[in-house]
Amino acid sequence: MKLSKYFPILDWGRHYKAETFFNDGIAAVIVTIMLIPQSLAYALLAGLPPQVGLYASILPLVAYAIFGSSRTLAVGPVAVISLMTAAAAGKLATQGSPEYLAVAILLALISGLMLLVMGLFRLGFIANFLSHPVISGFITASGILIAVSQLKHILGVSVSGHNLIEIGQSLIFKLGETNLPTLIIGVISTVFLFWVRGSLKPLLKKLGLSDKLAGIGTRIGPVIAVIVSILVVAGMGLSEQGVKIVGDIPKGLPPLTVPEFDLELWRSLLASALIIAVIGFVESVSVAQTLAAKRRQRIDPDQELIGLGVSNVAAAFSGGYPVTGGFSRSAVNFDAGAETPAAGAFTAIGIAITTLFFTPLIYFLPIAVLAATIIVAVLSLVKIQDIREAWNYSKSDFSAMMATIILTLALGVEAGVVAGVVISVGMFLFRSSRPHYAIVGQVRDTEHFRNVDRHKVITSPRVLSIRMDESLYFANARYLEDAVYEKALQSKDIEHVILMCSAVNHIDLSALESLEAINERLKAANIKFHLSEVKGPVMDRLKRSHFLDELTGQVFLSQIDAVRAIVGNAHGSELEYHL
Amino acid sequence: MKLSKYFPILDWGRHYKAETFFNDGIAAVIVTIMLIPQSLAYALLAGLPPQVGLYASILPLVAYAIFGSSRTLAVGPVAVISLMTAAAAGKLATQGSPEYLAVAILLALISGLMLLVMGLFRLGFIANFLSHPVISGFITASGILIAVSQLKHILGVSVSGHNLIEIGQSLIFKLGETNLPTLIIGVISTVFLFWVRGSLKPLLKKLGLSDKLAGIGTRIGPVIAVIVSILVVAGMGLSEQGVKIVGDIPKGLPPLTVPEFDLELWRSLLASALIIAVIGFVESVSVAQTLAAKRRQRIDPDQELIGLGVSNVAAAFSGGYPVTGGFSRSAVNFDAGAETPAAGAFTAIGIAITTLFFTPLIYFLPIAVLAATIIVAVLSLVKIQDIREAWNYSKSDFSAMMATIILTLALGVEAGVVAGVVISVGMFLFRSSRPHYAIVGQVRDTEHFRNVDRHKVITSPRVLSIRMDESLYFANARYLEDAVYEKALQSKDIEHVILMCSAVNHIDLSALESLEAINERLKAANIKFHLSEVKGPVMDRLKRSHFLDELTGQVFLSQIDAVRAIVGNAHGSELEYHL
Repeated sequence: MKLSKYFPILDWGRHYKAETFFNDGIAAVIVTIMLIPQSLAYALLAGLPPQVGLYASILPLVAYAIFGSSRTLAVGPVAVISLMTAAAAGKLATQGSPEYLAVAILLALISGLMLLVMGLFRLGFIANFLSHPVISGFITASGILIAVSQLKHILGVSVSGHNLIEIGQSLIFKLGETNLPTLIIGVISTVFLFWVRGSLKPLLKKLGLSDKLAGIGTRIGPVIAVIVSILVVAGMGLSEQGVKIVGDIPKGLPPLTVPEFDLELWRSLLASALIIAVIGFVESVSVAQTLAAKRRQRIDPDQELIGLGVSNVAAAFSGGYPVTGGFSRSAVNFDAGAETPAAGAFTAIGIAITTLFFTPLIYFLPIAVLAATIIVAVLSLVKIQDIREAWNYSKSDFSAMMATIILTLALGVEAGVVAGVVISVGMFLFRSSRPHYAIVGQVRDTEHFRNVDRHKVITSPRVLSIRMDESLYFANARYLEDAVYEKALQSKDIEHVILMCSAVNHIDLSALESLEAINERLKAANIKFHLSEVKGPVMDRLKRSHFLDELTGQVFLSQIDAVRAIVGNAHGSELEYHL
Repeated sequence: MKLSKYFPILDWGRHYKAETFFNDGIAAVIVTIMLIPQSLAYALLAGLPPQVGLYASILPLVAYAIFGSSRTLAVGPVAVISLMTAAAAGKLATQGSPEYLAVAILLALISGLMLLVMGLFRLGFIANFLSHPVISGFITASGILIAVSQLKHILGVSVSGHNLIEIGQSLIFKLGETNLPTLIIGVISTVFLFWVRGSLKPLLKKLGLSDKLAGIGTRIGPVIAVIVSILVVAGMGLSEQGVKIVGDIPKGLPPLTVPEFDLELWRSLLASALIIAVIGFVESVSVAQTLAAKRRQRIDPDQELIGLGVSNVAAAFSGGYPVTGGFSRSAVNFDAGAETPAAGAFTAIGIAITTLFFTPLIYFLPIAVLAATIIVAVLSLVKIQDIREAWNYSKSDFSAMMATIILTLALGVEAGVVAGVVISVGMFLFRSSRPHYAIVGQVRDTEHFRNVDRHKVITSPRVLSIRMDESLYFANARYLEDAVYEKALQSKDIEHVILMCSAVNHIDLSALESLEAINERLKAANIKFHLSEVKGPVMDRLKRSHFLDELTGQVFLSQIDAVRAIVGNAHGSELEYHL
């Protein structure tokens, strides 16, 4: 029982059948074909040699097959994590240097270890502090940033920078150096890939393919661009005319790499590795949950942390760089009929065979085509309707989203995501520090109490009932005091104040001191202070303090009990109607 | 109206009478006598020349008299802020150098400007994020730190360090260099001052003095120690035997100082100045509120920010250092009968006269006596019973307090207070990310619904009512999903899930997406999803989304309405009893 919790493979592996093997195998072939250009492209995006992308698609997949809890998630290099790797490694080394590769490998190791620790200590909840608007804004901005950063390969110029301003300026300066054959290849392949994405699926369906098959056909469209462009470049000798090509890729399986153990280097990578770990986890888990829900399966987020952690450690020891579960490859894996994580292991075998035998075939593959596949892939991440939805629903969610987008574009990925988290948490704290509260009265012919400003309710001039809509804690303790004083001292008729605690989920020591102050102050004004609807856990805690001994009034189980005890059942002259 | 809001002096100044003048004047004389040794002592604690303490007790008091909203608060140098000034200035310059003084002056300017800005933009709520346990722990630890740091003056050795470990080590190394006459003076005055604090008041009361007068007599006890020690040191020529004395203090009014405008220096002081501003504000406001409550007056926290801000700016331009409202001087001012802030202005005149004429009188004042007054004053800040109370009431409040104490002692004041805030906020976020929830049922013969585990309630096997005790937001959105799935899918009888939202004060976009996911998932399991007791502001927001269109169930005003609509009024065979 316990062992299969940490090794999900023991669970599904026990019932593995020939039919499952066949389905997983088919899916693996399709994913392998799609993964080859994608792995090369994302390595390019990360500023790494192309083979590193392939290496990152071998051992990590095997590791995930053993430890992952999702049946259909496909791990490997993904766009956003590649961009973040480039940003983090670029701070410490120059692209193309052995140090740069060493840093990328180390990032995989550190973020992998962090994920593992988070999984073992069940700290997956940390990822919950990335709100949906922040994630959505971050992904949108990253998509724009990635697309713009790849324009240099379409133009055939060299450009540097980690944010929109740097990249944009650099691009404009270099426009004059554009390489024409590269531009032509880049533009044609971009247009072709957009067409594939937008129009191929309907066409294939018209030709009689099923929805699934048409979807898979569309996903491996880039392979066609790859094959055609290799033939064109090789046949026309375009690489001598300045068209940059992938070139020599060392044949053979990934090398065993031992990450560096330089304490200073580790320390300087901790923050970046944490952000990569958390963003990678969030992206992966949301893909895994979406796919699991379609087949009524469940994933275990803590086990996902372990699975992704081991995958990244595996990447670090086999010449790879940070990996996570990717959306497009997982969707293809799912649609192609993968049933178990074994499909991932089979894909790893497919990629391994490619690195062993087929790398010479992509010698002439133009970098511009890889850039085009990246651009087309990431622009689908840019979701303008998410921004509109956030605007409609909540201005604070919208602000967090826009701040994340703007800061990611202006300052880079790490600053953007940190700012997004700080803003969302800050807004939550700010809101809870000035909570909504309502003066409540009894809804006629019920025992229900609601806001006097919104409902037709009965109140008594002698009794003030305040419902405070927030847990009482240090940040709103003073606000609570001010609110009660303002309302309680405005009329001389008031003899009783009832604090209705139905929405109070916690009272901390600071708030307890405020309650004591309120009790004292009201006592001096000859007003009794009562509580109603105090929740069990809150009451348990109050009983451990002196507050209940000093309270001038009582604690009532329900608001109606409180009002009945104070006013009596006399719905007579004393009661007023609101609204 | 508007003007007197920002200049409270216009308010009380209009009704100023001869009798008030007399009372304020008496209070000013008493406070002046008490303030002279205190100002010298706190300047010493801050590592500044003694006259700086006097300068900080002149213009800032006038500024506060014009802008402050408390009638009896006495501003000036205080212990904790002096310690923080020493910690901040010590990072950038060595004690005794002109740069050190310049940094202290700049700290007053920057923190004054910060307070002003916070006041004008009504940002006083920022101070609310310092919880009571953190403040209490910080003050206790600062008291210990200050007392230990003053031991060097009692021993007559020189010692450095900004935390307990550094100071302690340094002290032990220097024990051998102890100056015997200094030690004798130091020990005698410390013992005397403890006796004054503990036993003089009862004695004076026995001698027939009123409680108030006895209190004031006790407060100016240090003046006796000052006078006697000056006479002893001067008469016996102890300063030639190594007893350090105050020495020459420049005669005359404070100089007009223009703070430095070095951008780099400003930037490096921002964090320290912010902490000094916030801690000073919190200390001052709590003193002001305590005193105001005794006379049924109110203070305006935002105006207090302005008053303290202008006071600190005034300190910066008159050779002073950061000031705030102090507890002991305000209490003396209050007990001595001060009625308006004019008492503060009169005190300023008293101190100004002292600097003009009387500084030669304190030439022979031994530093050890000043150190003794500091030690006796700050040890009263150490409140062990606060720690015990926190332990009894809440382990998380206790942890925040202990962490603040330990980190303040081990790492210094700034690290301690920052850690305290981070820990309190982190604990609040953690708690709200895994909120309490309860399955609820109807309390017999009422319309009230409570936790099935705590109360004897009626439930129906067809209906699951979950009350989620927290606002629904990004950090607990996934937790909400898991909780509902776990409870809703555990029994096959369940046909309806009612989410009781009485404690839900906000639903953000992330949580809305989770509610949509829950609705979808339950729909697939043939379970209807209802909401009840949704608060007005939350409902307003939900109406702006598509959620209500897609909801399989309904939104009910109250939980009883929901249950009646679904189960009917039949309290029959279908219902079960809990407990």
